[in-house]
Amino acid sequence: MPQKFIFTSVIGAFVFSQDHKPIDGIIFKGINDYKNKDPQLKLKHDAIIPEGNDLHRILLHFKDRKYFQEFSKRNLELTRESIANSVGKDTLIIQTATIIGELDRTLNGLAKRLRDWYSLHNPEASDRIRDHQKFAAAIAKSTKKQLLKELDINEKDSMGAEFNEKDLSPILMLASQINALYGLRERYELYLRELEKEVCPNIATILGATITAKLLEHTGSLKRLAEMPASTLQILGAEKALFRHLRNSRNRPPKYGILHEHPMIQKANRKMHGKVARALADKASIAARVDYFKGKPIGDKLKKEIISKFKIEY
Amino acid sequence: MPQKFIFTSVIGAFVFSQDHKPIDGIIFKGINDYKNKDPQLKLKHDAIIPEGNDLHRILLHFKDRKYFQEFSKRNLELTRESIANSVGKDTLIIQTATIIGELDRTLNGLAKRLRDWYSLHNPEASDRIRDHQKFAAAIAKSTKKQLLKELDINEKDSMGAEFNEKDLSPILMLASQINALYGLRERYELYLRELEKEVCPNIATILGATITAKLLEHTGSLKRLAEMPASTLQILGAEKALFRHLRNSRNRPPKYGILHEHPMIQKANRKMHGKVARALADKASIAARVDYFKGKPIGDKLKKEIISKFKIEY
Repeated sequence: MPQKFIFTSVIGAFVFSQDHKPIDGIIFKGINDYKNKDPQLKLKHDAIIPEGNDLHRILLHFKDRKYFQEFSKRNLELTRESIANSVGKDTLIIQTATIIGELDRTLNGLAKRLRDWYSLHNPEASDRIRDHQKFAAAIAKSTKKQLLKELDINEKDSMGAEFNEKDLSPILMLASQINALYGLRERYELYLRELEKEVCPNIATILGATITAKLLEHTGSLKRLAEMPASTLQILGAEKALFRHLRNSRNRPPKYGILHEHPMIQKANRKMHGKVARALADKASIAARVDYFKGKPIGDKLKKEIISKFKIEY
Repeated sequence: MPQKFIFTSVIGAFVFSQDHKPIDGIIFKGINDYKNKDPQLKLKHDAIIPEGNDLHRILLHFKDRKYFQEFSKRNLELTRESIANSVGKDTLIIQTATIIGELDRTLNGLAKRLRDWYSLHNPEASDRIRDHQKFAAAIAKSTKKQLLKELDINEKDSMGAEFNEKDLSPILMLASQINALYGLRERYELYLRELEKEVCPNIATILGATITAKLLEHTGSLKRLAEMPASTLQILGAEKALFRHLRNSRNRPPKYGILHEHPMIQKANRKMHGKVARALADKASIAARVDYFKGKPIGDKLKKEIISKFKIEY
């Protein structure tokens, strides 16, 4: 029995005779057919996949113009699909972390303006309530009279000007907008935690939600983070200091970058900072790989190892 | 009949005999008494206000410690009152203009983040709707399906990923926050116009609400703006260019600063820019003085003079 060849492309599966003439074939209706690659045809003809010269001869067959449009259309579909699939949950973590950063900048700016403005009316409140969020909440909720009473200040002693309803209401509108933005920020924090629980529970257990998000933001994806050596992860975010060291070794190499904020490092003895950072990076790097390959929970175990090694109360 | 003296201070009015002994007096109950200065006592004694040596002798009388506390208390009250009164409506215009600027920066930043984020789901909408405000409004209102239909794009052609409810809702929350901030910005624009109608209707008629607010922001008060020569007003905001010119006269002096945005300058022939700016500054300077002294409406007349001089369609 002469040998037959089967050639499968995005547009269909085709069977060729030994001298490379098409003898059978099916046209795929969509890319799902292509992905499911129905084995029927191959079995029916007992065909093999062509190689070398046979493949070359068969490919020549598809140089015909009539296939061009079909190939182009199907390839576009495939590309579109893989772009859509490239949006992983890690991308969402990065977006959420970025927007939290943007909200922080925004809230800082708006809250300062609010203080400036409201201080014309009630400078004492702005002096006493230093926290932006509490300040905005307080003035949206209470009148000047109530606020001064709570702060135990005699209303007659206030240095602020009297404001009528019309001039006060724009200020209060700003305050309640700021409150809404703080509320949004809190929602995003929760959402970030949820996403991390799903995508990278082990890293998040060791490093906490914020640092994990920053690492992902810095590397761009969980995949890249998982592929990184622990020593790179350790100094991520300290690139400037690293290159300063590489240019001129009189400058010491950095001990940590983003990891710097980790409470274990903050609590450790100054001399131990580098060692704790290295241990954290080691364990986080293991956790990143486990998370990337959807492995079992290991974060708590890894975290305990660091704690018992350095005897840090945490 | 021997001469008597009357001496009035924040704490009271006192009558002294010719040899500077106190013979009569009233103690003010508050600073309002001081401001209303009851003339009764002066008439009753036919007293005169002391000068020179007489004043000196009388003042010595008040060096007594028993007056110290009273003087201090009353002066504090007076200071407090004048601080409170220093918050003029022009201060509110400046605050409002500043917050509008802050909101613009904020909205720009947040809207860019929103685009980045939402584009993972529906990149086509972000491409087609270039205006930030419209974009935020559109995605808060319509689903991806509806949006694509409105934009006449086949849903199958979308390059975006499928998002479930849980991942889409944080994005939509951001969009509706942004909409609320745009709403706030519009309210502030109206408030600004109202304030200007009250405080500086004539400048606002000539220069428009935005430029007027920027000039006030730059100078700090209507008083200072009114005291400025027209030539200074003309180049306000172009200080850098001015000093470049003063250092080295090869650099030309600036024609305008904040006034640059004025539609009359924008519409004028390039060669006429400087002349139009000078005319605008002249008229605005007159208007500023009229506004500061609460004069009659003159803005329309001044504006017509410029229009007829330069024959600008406006």
